[in-house]
Amino acid sequence: MIKKGTVIYPGTFDPITLGHIDIIKRGLKLFDSLIVAVAGSSTKETLFTLDERVEMIRDAVGEQEHMFIENFDGLLVDHVKKKNINAVLRGLRAVSDFEYEFQMALINRKVNEKVETIFMMTDERYSYISSRFIKEISKLGGNVDFFVPANVAQRLREKHIS
Amino acid sequence: MIKKGTVIYPGTFDPITLGHIDIIKRGLKLFDSLIVAVAGSSTKETLFTLDERVEMIRDAVGEQEHMFIENFDGLLVDHVKKKNINAVLRGLRAVSDFEYEFQMALINRKVNEKVETIFMMTDERYSYISSRFIKEISKLGGNVDFFVPANVAQRLREKHIS
Amino acid sequence: MIKKGTVIYPGTFDPITLGHIDIIKRGLKLFDSLIVAVAGSSTKETLFTLDERVEMIRDAVGEQEHMFIENFDGLLVDHVKKKNINAVLRGLRAVSDFEYEFQMALINRKVNEKVETIFMMTDERYSYISSRFIKEISKLGGNVDFFVPANVAQRLREKHIS
Amino acid sequence: MIKKGTVIYPGTFDPITLGHIDIIKRGLKLFDSLIVAVAGSSTKETLFTLDERVEMIRDAVGEQEHMFIENFDGLLVDHVKKKNINAVLRGLRAVSDFEYEFQMALINRKVNEKVETIFMMTDERYSYISSRFIKEISKLGGNVDFFVPANVAQRLREKHIS
Amino acid sequence: MIKKGTVIYPGTFDPITLGHIDIIKRGLKLFDSLIVAVAGSSTKETLFTLDERVEMIRDAVGEQEHMFIENFDGLLVDHVKKKNINAVLRGLRAVSDFEYEFQMALINRKVNEKVETIFMMTDERYSYISSRFIKEISKLGGNVDFFVPANVAQRLREKHIS
Amino acid sequence: MIKKGTVIYPGTFDPITLGHIDIIKRGLKLFDSLIVAVAGSSTKETLFTLDERVEMIRDAVGEQEHMFIENFDGLLVDHVKKKNINAVLRGLRAVSDFEYEFQMALINRKVNEKVETIFMMTDERYSYISSRFIKEISKLGGNVDFFVPANVAQRLREKHIS
Repeated sequence: MIKKGTVIYPGTFDPITLGHIDIIKRGLKLFDSLIVAVAGSSTKETLFTLDERVEMIRDAVGEQEHMFIENFDGLLVDHVKKKNINAVLRGLRAVSDFEYEFQMALINRKVNEKVETIFMMTDERYSYISSRFIKEISKLGGNVDFFVPANVAQRLREKHIS
Repeated sequence: MIKKGTVIYPGTFDPITLGHIDIIKRGLKLFDSLIVAVAGSSTKETLFTLDERVEMIRDAVGEQEHMFIENFDGLLVDHVKKKNINAVLRGLRAVSDFEYEFQMALINRKVNEKVETIFMMTDERYSYISSRFIKEISKLGGNVDFFVPANVAQRLREKHIS
Repeated sequence: MIKKGTVIYPGTFDPITLGHIDIIKRGLKLFDSLIVAVAGSSTKETLFTLDERVEMIRDAVGEQEHMFIENFDGLLVDHVKKKNINAVLRGLRAVSDFEYEFQMALINRKVNEKVETIFMMTDERYSYISSRFIKEISKLGGNVDFFVPANVAQRLREKHIS
Repeated sequence: MIKKGTVIYPGTFDPITLGHIDIIKRGLKLFDSLIVAVAGSSTKETLFTLDERVEMIRDAVGEQEHMFIENFDGLLVDHVKKKNINAVLRGLRAVSDFEYEFQMALINRKVNEKVETIFMMTDERYSYISSRFIKEISKLGGNVDFFVPANVAQRLREKHIS
Repeated sequence: MIKKGTVIYPGTFDPITLGHIDIIKRGLKLFDSLIVAVAGSSTKETLFTLDERVEMIRDAVGEQEHMFIENFDGLLVDHVKKKNINAVLRGLRAVSDFEYEFQMALINRKVNEKVETIFMMTDERYSYISSRFIKEISKLGGNVDFFVPANVAQRLREKHIS
Repeated sequence: MIKKGTVIYPGTFDPITLGHIDIIKRGLKLFDSLIVAVAGSSTKETLFTLDERVEMIRDAVGEQEHMFIENFDGLLVDHVKKKNINAVLRGLRAVSDFEYEFQMALINRKVNEKVETIFMMTDERYSYISSRFIKEISKLGGNVDFFVPANVAQRLREKHIS
């Protein structure tokens, strides 16, 4: 049976940003439960290991009722099917997001027609934040305290010093 | 108390299209109940009266469990507040939609910070359908049977003959 | 029988611009024959009458081998069908064009599946020219000589003086 | 002689918003002097008269060193030429802005090749505000206090009551 | 002499998708002959060798009257010039395509002013398919049968098993 | 003290194009002085070394009153702060530029709230030129004389021969 009211929020979270956390909080207000699903075997190389990425989320968001953090391997739609969930949550910021997300959502729906993708908007204060930019700024010695939680900023500093 | 699981799907529906119906069906699969809210006092002129627009929706969608059709006057956010609902559902098709919808969603959130807007995608078969195009085609004597339910096609023909 | 190699270039041409003329010339190089089809009963109000719009095109483009100018009433796809042509030519300039044109092309293909829309790009020197802007500039007393052929510039001046 | 360091900020300002004021303040920090130029004879109908629009700006922004408010008739490029200024300032918010503004900037540059258009970005808190949306919200009885200065909110209320 | 009516459809085809095949079929209905030109020395790394890519196209499309498959080295415009062809065919799906394709088309036109690029739209059912997504899905063990012909799906499976 | 009237024009310039040179010339007409700032430690790999990139700019632009060329390490905002400059100049060409540039500008403003980004438009003749495309064309043996100054074209040829 499909679990109505449960939504899965997938991503690489390399690393989690204040924008991601904003979406998690907004999602928790609307859905009965929310699963943060961290992609293990991504096709893109990550700065942080899967364990580090999960840990950073846990530390940043803390214990939240009705929120679960997990990781998955392989294709998102296959994972979603195995769990009998039919709603995927994604944040939207800009037009470039929009096109990529639409392609993914349509492909996912084709592969598993029960999977719907739901989009929410981040707060406009976070609309320009992306993990990619944060990693670039941090690598060049910049301050990322405005864009990520404190524990992530600390990890980024360690990463680029070592 | 906020009614978690209830979502409001607002619009002018002048007239309802197969794209709108697609979103309604997808919404009903994900949320406990869905209210189709037809804007009465819009700032744009409509081809059909409020009563006609509500009737066309009722005829096209029929009785659906957990679906309600209603009309509202004034601002959407005020209506949403009065009803203690905090989720607005909108369909997205293309980039131009996206920008307009984002502006509206951010403004609504500002006026009533409890209001979240949730976006879903129509089936790709309906991604190019808009009420505006349908009215133009119909006015020029074109066939709109592929884009609207049969009762709406009939009403459009009557409108443009009389 | 479908006339392979014949392409129809439809529009309101209110008025024709250097951008339109550029597309006509490029089209004539690629296709056996090209029909400029001027929309008579448009859903939008025009500054120039149908006769004036056809005349301005004739004066601007002159006699061209394999080019024909005609006007049509009603829906483009119906006109195209009647003439047994299956290729519609449209110019593309910018992203906003792109979305509108895609919607129209998909709708046309749905109504008449034999109709294909072919897009060509104007010279970058004309990429920012639109009939709408030209009418606005002319109305405010501006010089439009860079954007339209001489006969059109003259007509616009007469229109706004009288 | 061209007045280097002077920039003109043109618009209809129907009415002025917090987004416009944000651009004015940012412009004053970068340029020696800034002229707010209110379009008199626009091609679009305005809710407020030219006098009202100028007054609202004056009341909202107050006296600012190096800032001047004026109105102009006809085409912006002609006005700019008469004043020997070669920099036009415009705010950018979204992709749809971007395309419209680019077309205008290229046309202006063509008509008067000395005119450069300079774009600045509003604060992300104002990125979704437009005069058009504000007028719609106000007309439907909504609260626009978050989007416009107090004097403009007051004027909008009066406009829609009377 | 320029071969009017012949169009070249270039790409990396790494691998060919149902979207590409759709464009080939639509092109064959409009043009006298169509050459599928597979880029050999691309600047991006490919998953399949040039021979594999050509073979997959041949197997997927089969023998088609007036269709030819060939490969080329170096720059497309140089190849096009050598063959005395002046029309390049490209499929368009989304806004991101649009910008990339426009840049390429304008550059090609600059380098060889006789080269025109013609754009056609894929069926909306294929509008979200891209070779890049297909390779990612396949790599993660997903089913790509909806997006590519059977022989390509088979090759992708072999690639990712070995 | 902030140096009003001085603007910094940063980039990788790998290599400088006619589009960059166009922006430099336009900037020099509007601002008291302009600093071309070449990024040393970029996060992306460059074809040319920092020294080569600086040299190519110097050779292409020559001595210009009020123009300075320099290189910087680390984050642009930190460099800008150190120099007490508060205006960054960037060229805009297309929608994809626009989004990337907006993200950067908002991030820079967040990290250093005194930094404003000013956008100018290249001539439409250069709107499709990008360093990335030029490198690709050159690598495939294409002629880039229309897109870069002569000294850069020469260097690109040497790079790809050796």
